[in-house]
Amino acid sequence: MTAPLDTLVLGAADVAAIVDQVGRDELIDLMIARLRARCAEHSAGTTEVRARDGFRYDKPDLGLVEWMPTHEAGGPVVVKMVGYHPANPVQRDLPSVIATSSMWDTDTGHLVALADATLLTALRTGAASALATDVLANDGPITLGIVGLGAQAVTQLHAISRVRSIERVIALDTDLDVAASFPQRVAFCGVPVEVAEPERADTIAAEVDVLCTCTSVDLDAGPVIGDTTPRPGLHVNAVGADFPGKLELPGALLSDAFVVPDIVDQCVLEGECQQVPRERIGPPLAEIVRDQPEHRSRRNDVTVFDSTGWAVEDDVALRLLVECAQERGIGRRIPIEYLPTDPYDPYAPPR
Amino acid sequence: MTAPLDTLVLGAADVAAIVDQVGRDELIDLMIARLRARCAEHSAGTTEVRARDGFRYDKPDLGLVEWMPTHEAGGPVVVKMVGYHPANPVQRDLPSVIATSSMWDTDTGHLVALADATLLTALRTGAASALATDVLANDGPITLGIVGLGAQAVTQLHAISRVRSIERVIALDTDLDVAASFPQRVAFCGVPVEVAEPERADTIAAEVDVLCTCTSVDLDAGPVIGDTTPRPGLHVNAVGADFPGKLELPGALLSDAFVVPDIVDQCVLEGECQQVPRERIGPPLAEIVRDQPEHRSRRNDVTVFDSTGWAVEDDVALRLLVECAQERGIGRRIPIEYLPTDPYDPYAPPR
Repeated sequence: MTAPLDTLVLGAADVAAIVDQVGRDELIDLMIARLRARCAEHSAGTTEVRARDGFRYDKPDLGLVEWMPTHEAGGPVVVKMVGYHPANPVQRDLPSVIATSSMWDTDTGHLVALADATLLTALRTGAASALATDVLANDGPITLGIVGLGAQAVTQLHAISRVRSIERVIALDTDLDVAASFPQRVAFCGVPVEVAEPERADTIAAEVDVLCTCTSVDLDAGPVIGDTTPRPGLHVNAVGADFPGKLELPGALLSDAFVVPDIVDQCVLEGECQQVPRERIGPPLAEIVRDQPEHRSRRNDVTVFDSTGWAVEDDVALRLLVECAQERGIGRRIPIEYLPTDPYDPYAPPR
Repeated sequence: MTAPLDTLVLGAADVAAIVDQVGRDELIDLMIARLRARCAEHSAGTTEVRARDGFRYDKPDLGLVEWMPTHEAGGPVVVKMVGYHPANPVQRDLPSVIATSSMWDTDTGHLVALADATLLTALRTGAASALATDVLANDGPITLGIVGLGAQAVTQLHAISRVRSIERVIALDTDLDVAASFPQRVAFCGVPVEVAEPERADTIAAEVDVLCTCTSVDLDAGPVIGDTTPRPGLHVNAVGADFPGKLELPGALLSDAFVVPDIVDQCVLEGECQQVPRERIGPPLAEIVRDQPEHRSRRNDVTVFDSTGWAVEDDVALRLLVECAQERGIGRRIPIEYLPTDPYDPYAPPR
């Protein structure tokens, strides 16, 4: 092997080109299909997932930089690095979640690819909710509630619109400007959106078939959803809770629900499962997808998908992006690693 | 803040340009000086270092991909990703250690820089040994022994030659081809090198003032150094042991020595400290450097620096590289993260 070992770098413009060329619908459909397939074949024995870890700080605004590593036996190592800085949109006109993902070859340790994962994170989070909805919610047409109308809300709606016919969306946010711009941001989905007052969160669980919560609620300030009797068969995608003390759902809703975590240990620490006794937590999403027929009757129950973010979703997303890029010749190849012409001499000129 | 947020990418050619323009000697001197300064000001209270973790596999050759994250309060988050694939040089003409380092801004979560860390790893490992040698070894001129003559050996010799006058080097490796090429690889240091037979490892501890061990000895195959009575005042930089079961030094040498770990918990797991009772392990290198006058009398003892790799070294190295690049306008700036023009719309065009 004497060819230079380049790294495929997929930056902002490359990701935009992929979305343009593949199309939003096709891309999210692929993401859902790949995640479904990976869930079906998932076994903890062949895929290692390290618990998300990172550095958290208040200076004075909350911020964190975290890593989410995974390794499927025989496949590459994939690590997503993700920053969460909730003050970003208001203070800096930047998304609260900014991320990159990288892929390493496990024969050599070579960095194969580095890509933006900001859009991928929104896509895979939407895809996971769509998959949970497809398995756990009744067939449509459905009324969809969305609480918290930031970036994640766009892909929640988009992804769910690919697995269910949506009759109507009730959408709300405590930030009225963010709420007002939502219909325009999701116009491409072709679904009627009603922007409701923030107070509607009190009763929304009784009014919809599927509910997505994706807020940036402050620590210890939740829940954001009212403690009303939920509509029978309600399915909730709880996306926002991903930090100790951050909660969106009322305990009563959870205590009557079939709760499906994405990754149980992380959900117990950071997700809605903070409020759920361990013995009441259901199987993880991958198992529900794998054994779908067996869980079909759960559609009549109130169900909650506790989505804290699963590194395997990021692995699936990066591999799909790289595949799309390679098929279209998108991205640049950069020799990043200094691989000396003499492997025993670190100062030898690079290949 | 409306300027695009680029990432500074420092690839192989950029690192080569920095080495050329700064000069090898000046670069290693800067690395040693920066690491010395960082040790002197180091306090665990302001710098968080996560234990190195990663994925390890045998397929059938041993390999691993690991991450080494650190965060100095008020500074960036720095993560080195490092692959160790000891079959690389022989099977693939690649270095066994291949690495990249990245830096994140803790106001926004933005990826500020990504750089090769293959050369940096060799430099910082050399710099750490030079620092330990400078503090713990007697003043020169010295005789230096080096066991294991791969890539790390080059920067061990180079870095130590910057803090001590080296009268003579006795160098050996079980791979005779690797041994034969060593004098030419370190010719730039201007130090006479005697290549010895591999068996000389049995007695070398009695023949030198400073000894560096930097082998790729197999797990459970060590020690590589003979159990002879060491020369009084011998200082050893034990660089190779960085994996459970991987050891280079005989227990007897360690049991009589003052043992200085780079990061104690990691050394107990992966370094020579696997063989040292916890209560016999001395203070970490940063403390020894900070309190140097207090430890000066240790120069008369046999001392061992157990160098498993400290994430703070990688932080220092990356910051220095970025600074050198910025001063010289080296590197390319790439908008990697997809930062949408509307932070609430992940599909909005990137900035």
